[in-house]
Amino acid sequence: MNEKQLAGEKAAEFVKNGMTVGLGTGSTVYYTIRRIGEMVKEGLTIKAVSTSSSTTRLAESLRIPLVSIDEAGKLDLTIDGADEVDPAFRGIKGGGGALFFEKIVAAASERSIWVVGSDKLVDRLGRFPLPVEVVPFGYSQVYRRLFDKGLNPKLRMSGENRYITDSGNYIIDLQLGAIGDPEALNDWLNGITGVVEHGLFLGMANAVVVARQDIVEVKERENG
Amino acid sequence: MNEKQLAGEKAAEFVKNGMTVGLGTGSTVYYTIRRIGEMVKEGLTIKAVSTSSSTTRLAESLRIPLVSIDEAGKLDLTIDGADEVDPAFRGIKGGGGALFFEKIVAAASERSIWVVGSDKLVDRLGRFPLPVEVVPFGYSQVYRRLFDKGLNPKLRMSGENRYITDSGNYIIDLQLGAIGDPEALNDWLNGITGVVEHGLFLGMANAVVVARQDIVEVKERENG
Repeated sequence: MNEKQLAGEKAAEFVKNGMTVGLGTGSTVYYTIRRIGEMVKEGLTIKAVSTSSSTTRLAESLRIPLVSIDEAGKLDLTIDGADEVDPAFRGIKGGGGALFFEKIVAAASERSIWVVGSDKLVDRLGRFPLPVEVVPFGYSQVYRRLFDKGLNPKLRMSGENRYITDSGNYIIDLQLGAIGDPEALNDWLNGITGVVEHGLFLGMANAVVVARQDIVEVKERENG
Repeated sequence: MNEKQLAGEKAAEFVKNGMTVGLGTGSTVYYTIRRIGEMVKEGLTIKAVSTSSSTTRLAESLRIPLVSIDEAGKLDLTIDGADEVDPAFRGIKGGGGALFFEKIVAAASERSIWVVGSDKLVDRLGRFPLPVEVVPFGYSQVYRRLFDKGLNPKLRMSGENRYITDSGNYIIDLQLGAIGDPEALNDWLNGITGVVEHGLFLGMANAVVVARQDIVEVKERENG
């Protein structure tokens, strides 16, 4: 069993009867969702909220009952992947492009758990490109501001075309190498008109499920 | 001539040959755009960037040459209305629902001028409801956060249906009465996942053209 599968399936143990659960997007949480599908088949009763069209398709194929985030109200738990996690449980997400809905669902959840292979643990965030979701209208203005600040922006493409998110927006990836002050960058990006969201997830994860080879570990955040 | 027309037409004097000009949206800047249309007919050469579908229709009908904001690059000047302006040139905009594109265009402009009737000048912002543009996905989660903070949110309707912006989002109007610290509220709203933009325009207007009865006055911001 690979690390993704090991971590992904382990996280499903946090799902209990009666919960409303946010389902993230990506190749690790894929295994969580598949395992939850088995648990539902075995009698688990939950309501789930999807964070992307691909997760919706997967959950529907497994007969996991889905509700809209508006119907759900407060969520008990969200399980999602992450592209990088630092020792303070800060993360970068959004390589897959679903960061906006993922962040909305995480923000609506009592607890968030990330599932990752050990290669995602980093001392400092930033080697993974930081995705910034921008509205198409005037995106080049935002691009220029990011460029002028030295953030090495790159418009994400899908073949010959601009990559389009589930919300109909573009993604600009920032090649940063290392992020010295994630909180300051978070605030600066939040203040830019035209930026819908970005992939810095600060103070959101309460626990991280990490697999290293055939060992799986659950790290809980203090006060988390 | 009413105040809106007086202020609106006065502001057109700031438009000079060769400029790239952002055109706002609303019942006062309507008169600016109409006057610019006359100037174009008389030989003025400009490029204009629209902030809404209604302004696009108006500008096209007047044969004002339009370019996209991405083609435009840096804009020289944007002329727009405002719903409230305080003595520090801070404003509330977005009663008309075009605040998002208006803010993007203003942010891309060297200078911004607001045109208002005298009734829009206030000592303190907040009597006018503050619009917050939110994505439909999970909007009720944002609504609840605004409600829990005591901000008296109200989902904007258009007859029986939810009002939809040009970007396909909803508007939640905050009935605040008075805003004690606009900068703090600005930062707090910018940090909420699901909020695309809001109607607080801080540090953006360089000048305000105000009409009071038949007197029109241009107020310039210091260092503006």
